[in-house]
Amino acid sequence: MNTQRPRIIIIGAGFGGLFAARTLANQPVDVLLIDRSNFHTFTPLLYQVATCALDPSEIAYPVRTIFRKNRNIRTLLGTVTDIDYANQVVMVENGRQRLQESYDYLILATGSVPTYFGKDVFREHALELRTLNDAINLRNHILELFEQATWIEDEAAREAMTTIVVVGGGPTGLETAGAIYELYNHVLNREYLHRNLQTRVVLVEMQPYLLAPYPEKLRQAALEQLRSLGVEALLGSPVQTVDEHQVVLADGAVIPTYTLVWAAGVKGSPLAEMLNLPLQRGGRLPILPTTEVSDRPGVYAVGDMTYLEDESGQPYPMVIPVAQQQGELAAQNILAEINGREKRPFRYHDRGSMATIGRRRAVAWIYNKVQLRGYLAWLAWLALHLVTLLGFRNRLNVFVNWVWNYFTYDRSVRIILEQGRGEEVISKKRLEIGD
Amino acid sequence: MNTQRPRIIIIGAGFGGLFAARTLANQPVDVLLIDRSNFHTFTPLLYQVATCALDPSEIAYPVRTIFRKNRNIRTLLGTVTDIDYANQVVMVENGRQRLQESYDYLILATGSVPTYFGKDVFREHALELRTLNDAINLRNHILELFEQATWIEDEAAREAMTTIVVVGGGPTGLETAGAIYELYNHVLNREYLHRNLQTRVVLVEMQPYLLAPYPEKLRQAALEQLRSLGVEALLGSPVQTVDEHQVVLADGAVIPTYTLVWAAGVKGSPLAEMLNLPLQRGGRLPILPTTEVSDRPGVYAVGDMTYLEDESGQPYPMVIPVAQQQGELAAQNILAEINGREKRPFRYHDRGSMATIGRRRAVAWIYNKVQLRGYLAWLAWLALHLVTLLGFRNRLNVFVNWVWNYFTYDRSVRIILEQGRGEEVISKKRLEIGD
Repeated sequence: MNTQRPRIIIIGAGFGGLFAARTLANQPVDVLLIDRSNFHTFTPLLYQVATCALDPSEIAYPVRTIFRKNRNIRTLLGTVTDIDYANQVVMVENGRQRLQESYDYLILATGSVPTYFGKDVFREHALELRTLNDAINLRNHILELFEQATWIEDEAAREAMTTIVVVGGGPTGLETAGAIYELYNHVLNREYLHRNLQTRVVLVEMQPYLLAPYPEKLRQAALEQLRSLGVEALLGSPVQTVDEHQVVLADGAVIPTYTLVWAAGVKGSPLAEMLNLPLQRGGRLPILPTTEVSDRPGVYAVGDMTYLEDESGQPYPMVIPVAQQQGELAAQNILAEINGREKRPFRYHDRGSMATIGRRRAVAWIYNKVQLRGYLAWLAWLALHLVTLLGFRNRLNVFVNWVWNYFTYDRSVRIILEQGRGEEVISKKRLEIGD
Repeated sequence: MNTQRPRIIIIGAGFGGLFAARTLANQPVDVLLIDRSNFHTFTPLLYQVATCALDPSEIAYPVRTIFRKNRNIRTLLGTVTDIDYANQVVMVENGRQRLQESYDYLILATGSVPTYFGKDVFREHALELRTLNDAINLRNHILELFEQATWIEDEAAREAMTTIVVVGGGPTGLETAGAIYELYNHVLNREYLHRNLQTRVVLVEMQPYLLAPYPEKLRQAALEQLRSLGVEALLGSPVQTVDEHQVVLADGAVIPTYTLVWAAGVKGSPLAEMLNLPLQRGGRLPILPTTEVSDRPGVYAVGDMTYLEDESGQPYPMVIPVAQQQGELAAQNILAEINGREKRPFRYHDRGSMATIGRRRAVAWIYNKVQLRGYLAWLAWLALHLVTLLGFRNRLNVFVNWVWNYFTYDRSVRIILEQGRGEEVISKKRLEIGD
């Protein structure tokens, strides 16, 4: 390896980091891609893992495999514990080892984490859907509750066990609520026959409408499709209190449940705090239009964790296409700087957005002009996600599973992986390596 | 449900319990099938999950789905804590609930657990391969070590991280050693290029030969195929001591390693102790030829956990076909007893055995007469396992994965599922339900 080449560290192998690394592949730079997982997660389909439709590995792709053919990209499985921006060094924990990796350029791309808008006490009783592990936890939780509900005598407790509350009327909330409704009513109900289980899926949104950024007609179409499916949508009232067996809304509604899925919003990744700069609202790190961070030489940041306003003064949304495009731009601007060319400012190419609500139900807002709803929107969603999934084999397996699910409503991926029992063994096997 | 019908409880949804339940499906009895997992595991392919070739759900099939169409079979996800054989009641933990289920007939089919032959201290540093969770743990362990090995400076520690010791020269040991060798040398070596990683796979067997029950020629063929693949086979010396970073054999050989897979032997499931009867060697529960347990009215036991001698005075082996055939017989004999017919004694239909050692390498001993080795034996193994896997969709996916792996050596199922992090959330979400 030529040690004279500029050394670029990318933290985070989500969509922003991945697209930055792709842009730097086979360029005359040395890239180090650091992530806490050894795989990239196709987050738009997390809810399908949570609802037993897909296997975890079908939406996860090993980072090493993605860059197998790019000798200038190395990957490091580890947790960044500190950034010494004065000396341009990143501190990383890799197993029991502590590594210090120096950089000429640094790209931060660690995304976002769920926010409870100051009510962190809700988190204690909430399940999230941001990581692959979250999805497996939610799947285990739902299946375990059904197994217990079958055997409990207390009717009220039984109903609470088969009631799920999803908080958040954005795409994730809609997709999750719709998919869980279908799991309950087309899959699980065929197998839990000995006891008549009443299921209930409730979507809670504090605004009086769903899908805030969408035009009114699509918001309304989404609400109608959700309700026609069978999901209860409670709009216009925020969550007031949460405890282990119920959710209470500000308007007084009480929903007995053991399952609260929090999809109400996200804030910037806490890693941004390592730069010791004032953050924008939502914990987002302000960046320049070139995706550079002011006063931190050589540091770029992209995606959900950043804050940048468009021409109209609105911040760019925390969505995947922004992260991808900013990731590419950061990489291009670093190459420009190395080669003495001019850096370009960020210009967002917005192809629109879509949200799906169960089979044959969706809304799509293409190029923020064409509005689709129902079957057509759903087919568009299906095609888009199949095309953008990484890896041919993954695509093939996902396709087989989808076709199978569509015609049979069968979901074999319904195993409770007992993560608890594993923990003991894993921690026992953690290595003791001399420092 | 007709409460007058005889009530049969089956404990364990392995091969013995599953075949017993299948035999009782749609008969005029009420069956309760209890297991700690909500799925049946196709254990012969566990090593393929451990070596990233298959997804966990591809060898696990939900018990509820298997018996979806059999209304007389109910399933209970729970742990049996006691058997009150005097009053014919089984105590079960299901989440926070404690259930008491009474039976007219009981079939015990809880299989076996690994044995360390009195050296239980080895277990602290060993990984096992009996459950789906074991397989995921081993996969995580291997992948994490590779990620760490890439970054460690100490050469000796690095080599120990990419060395694996498999103890046990039976089919499980051979299959695991062979599959890990291929994972190391055809998959991982293509992706860990920045550091030259020396890998080493060692199989340890205390007997001077592999595959003890096989004829001499096949034992020799297995050893030759294993060595021609690249696995080191150390025969004739038992493990003397094990600690975190090495394995020492009785003959003085020292193997620095962080990974010890224990496949040296199994003993009967500890559940047998709940009957308060003297056990045979290996903790196995003696049964009558009808699979009944003496002095415990209504209690039958089948499979690995039991001890029964054939005409020559040899105990039947702890293998899947014995469990399946005993499971069927126990169910048939219960039906015979109910209908006043005569019970039949166990007669083992031995179709032979086979073991695979990587691609195109295997030995097969069909009907204990025909001896196959190499490619032909491997094809026979492949066909048999594909046919006996449950569920059409599982078969299809496994087939796609196998063909894909065969031609490409690609293994996408290479994600480290961080079971540790999940545990916190899961335990937080365990239900508090009033007793």
